[in-house]
Amino acid sequence: MLRKIVIFGAGKSTSYLLDYLLEKSEEEKLHLTICDLFPEMLPNKIKEHKACSTLKLDIFNETERKNSVKSADIVISMLPAHLHINVAKDCIEHKKHLVTASYVSDQIRELDKKAKEYGLIFMNEIGVDPGIDHMSAMQAIDKIRKKGGKLILFESFTGGLVAPQSDNNLWNYKFTWNPRNVVLAGQGGAAKFFQEGTYKYIPYHKLFRRTEFLDVEGHGKFEAYANRDSLKYREAYGLQDALTLYRGTIRRVGFSKGWNMFVQMGMTDDSYTIENSEGMSYREFVNLFLSYSPTDSVELKMRHYLKIDQDDIMWDKLKELNLFDDHKKITLKNATPAQILQQILEESWTLGEHDKDMIVMYHKFGYVLNGKKRQIDSNMVVIGENRTHTAMSKTVGLPVAMATLFILNKKITTPGVQIPINKEAYEPILKELENYDIKFKEFKVPYLGYNPNV
Amino acid sequence: MLRKIVIFGAGKSTSYLLDYLLEKSEEEKLHLTICDLFPEMLPNKIKEHKACSTLKLDIFNETERKNSVKSADIVISMLPAHLHINVAKDCIEHKKHLVTASYVSDQIRELDKKAKEYGLIFMNEIGVDPGIDHMSAMQAIDKIRKKGGKLILFESFTGGLVAPQSDNNLWNYKFTWNPRNVVLAGQGGAAKFFQEGTYKYIPYHKLFRRTEFLDVEGHGKFEAYANRDSLKYREAYGLQDALTLYRGTIRRVGFSKGWNMFVQMGMTDDSYTIENSEGMSYREFVNLFLSYSPTDSVELKMRHYLKIDQDDIMWDKLKELNLFDDHKKITLKNATPAQILQQILEESWTLGEHDKDMIVMYHKFGYVLNGKKRQIDSNMVVIGENRTHTAMSKTVGLPVAMATLFILNKKITTPGVQIPINKEAYEPILKELENYDIKFKEFKVPYLGYNPNV
Repeated sequence: MLRKIVIFGAGKSTSYLLDYLLEKSEEEKLHLTICDLFPEMLPNKIKEHKACSTLKLDIFNETERKNSVKSADIVISMLPAHLHINVAKDCIEHKKHLVTASYVSDQIRELDKKAKEYGLIFMNEIGVDPGIDHMSAMQAIDKIRKKGGKLILFESFTGGLVAPQSDNNLWNYKFTWNPRNVVLAGQGGAAKFFQEGTYKYIPYHKLFRRTEFLDVEGHGKFEAYANRDSLKYREAYGLQDALTLYRGTIRRVGFSKGWNMFVQMGMTDDSYTIENSEGMSYREFVNLFLSYSPTDSVELKMRHYLKIDQDDIMWDKLKELNLFDDHKKITLKNATPAQILQQILEESWTLGEHDKDMIVMYHKFGYVLNGKKRQIDSNMVVIGENRTHTAMSKTVGLPVAMATLFILNKKITTPGVQIPINKEAYEPILKELENYDIKFKEFKVPYLGYNPNV
Repeated sequence: MLRKIVIFGAGKSTSYLLDYLLEKSEEEKLHLTICDLFPEMLPNKIKEHKACSTLKLDIFNETERKNSVKSADIVISMLPAHLHINVAKDCIEHKKHLVTASYVSDQIRELDKKAKEYGLIFMNEIGVDPGIDHMSAMQAIDKIRKKGGKLILFESFTGGLVAPQSDNNLWNYKFTWNPRNVVLAGQGGAAKFFQEGTYKYIPYHKLFRRTEFLDVEGHGKFEAYANRDSLKYREAYGLQDALTLYRGTIRRVGFSKGWNMFVQMGMTDDSYTIENSEGMSYREFVNLFLSYSPTDSVELKMRHYLKIDQDDIMWDKLKELNLFDDHKKITLKNATPAQILQQILEESWTLGEHDKDMIVMYHKFGYVLNGKKRQIDSNMVVIGENRTHTAMSKTVGLPVAMATLFILNKKITTPGVQIPINKEAYEPILKELENYDIKFKEFKVPYLGYNPNV
């Protein structure tokens, strides 16, 4: 008998997810129902696949949504994160498993008790970050613990970047995911982490000046800035006794120093709107953040304000974005500085038709074994195939698809609202991911931590 | 027949207010009822004055509060700003005039229609800033307009400072008002103003580096940083056509550059708490915002982070606050960085028993008259008498007291929720303030604006 998988949302991150499930559909006896507001946008090979049907569905149409959930053996939600809750409640009502790649919201967490009561698996955070980071970290941590090691340091970094072969701008960066999240990254409060037993805090306006460097063999040097809350998974990972906990976002070296210019200017602010933004030139936009002068140029004022030498590459980075152009116009009405900056950046940083993206993940595990401090670093690099089959959609979509299948096949059986930190989840998924060239390299390195001598 | 004035709240800003009304009580046939949670704290000469009675009152005791309002001919609320609304609603119910020194809240503004309907005067923002700034600015603006001048520039600055004779620290600053407001000044969004016809925005982390200088004859040089919203009174003052609108806060030169160090470090953040703050040393507190190092000192790390030379006076400013002291401990539990910084600063910046404070206000009025650009600057300096009779309580309390009396005496008669921008209010009050040495000096200066040649 066919097992029915109902998928809500078929955005650009679902290419690999759908390919994988359809590829397995015969062998695994699967039938997919893709519910989307615009199912006609799906490629023909998906739409016309015999194991697949599509349904034009507005997620707020409660009757249709509930009927779809009811028809499923398992549900995948690839909707924007805030919409999962609608589907999740239906899954409780109709007693269906649920898989999402998003962070567990408080609303979803509240369903844990009922999910357990009904024996339902609500698997979340099973994309790349969050997702592959959880699984690869927990696999390494459990391995160290099994040997008798005690974790004292855990650092984890992920970045969605442009692949080297398509890297042709001074920022070594293009948008490979939601640009808005990139522009707003780090906002909303100080970054908090734990270093050698003490809390550390970085205010937003210093975040991009407090980077760490990372070398990835064969891929060169990267930098990382701290995520908002590095302590988020302390309990989940069982790292209450670790002295150092740090989570960060990877960029190519020099990106953050450049990005800091926008932060310093106030251009990433999303808290107020500029009433006359429509039709404003890029140059006028920049000038909003500089003192008035009847004589000095916008360029000189900005160089002076940010103390940028004229032969500094930072300056070329700004010019590359046409930031001082008097003819380029903002087309957004009543936009926030962040929205305007996004528009300016999208003009320069959008993946071209033949561009490839890249996902880089890097973990550091410091531990004590037999009285000695040791360290293992591991990293994963995935290069995308093209603009649809991106490394991002691969590393997000495949773990979701695999988890779904393992739940159907009762390899993953623990009920409740969860993230993939249990062996029954990460072990088979990581193994299967290797078949798709998503694999980690591990290196023993000297314990560097921050205080190797104490 | 006695006129009854009921006063809610008798905090430290009410010394002059009470003195003034009691001094006038016989001539003006006044009786004061002071309602406070701790009326016993009032000085004997007030408590025992024959024109005064006191009432121990919890503002949340609705019956007593309403009874007090009912017994009044006019009500003054010197409560914390968020509590006015309780009294204001009672004033509507019992049809009483109301005077406060606080900003008009949305809740208070909603009472405007009823106040007008009942012929009640709800006078707000009648302290120093807001208050004397409104009155003095509107007087000058109306005078310019009467001559046929057209306002093109308005800038207004106020500061509560320590008087020169008590100015004995490197910051040239002591707390003369709510320290918490000083620590949080400028937070909550970018500062917005209008300069030569364009909006200008300064993000919080740049606010204290974009100061303007002010010379006040006989009192030396000051600096000012921009207030959050300089456009707040554009309509109220009728300045919709002005090219430049700027409101700022006055400090002694060098304060802002020093304060910027706290901002850069993230020490003024009030959005998260530090769970182990109690018992932490000042030095450990500073170190929370610096990278971990097994070898480098907190001092060197901070100097490097903020790029402070060792012979820079900025460095001495930090040392003066004992910021690197390992023995001085924070006594606050789970405090925010801002709360901790406040505690550290209060140790150094509290007014001593014999210290005097100072209020400085400075306005610039740019206008066109007969085709020529002109400018008038005006300023006011008030020095306090002692720690109780401060310049702050004088400049806040006297306008409140005077407005109250002018309302009773029907010199001020326009009903509704208002601020003192009408001639019937500012004219008699400014005149009466001069009898108490609160007066403005006016200077004709060359029009400087920002673009005098256009």
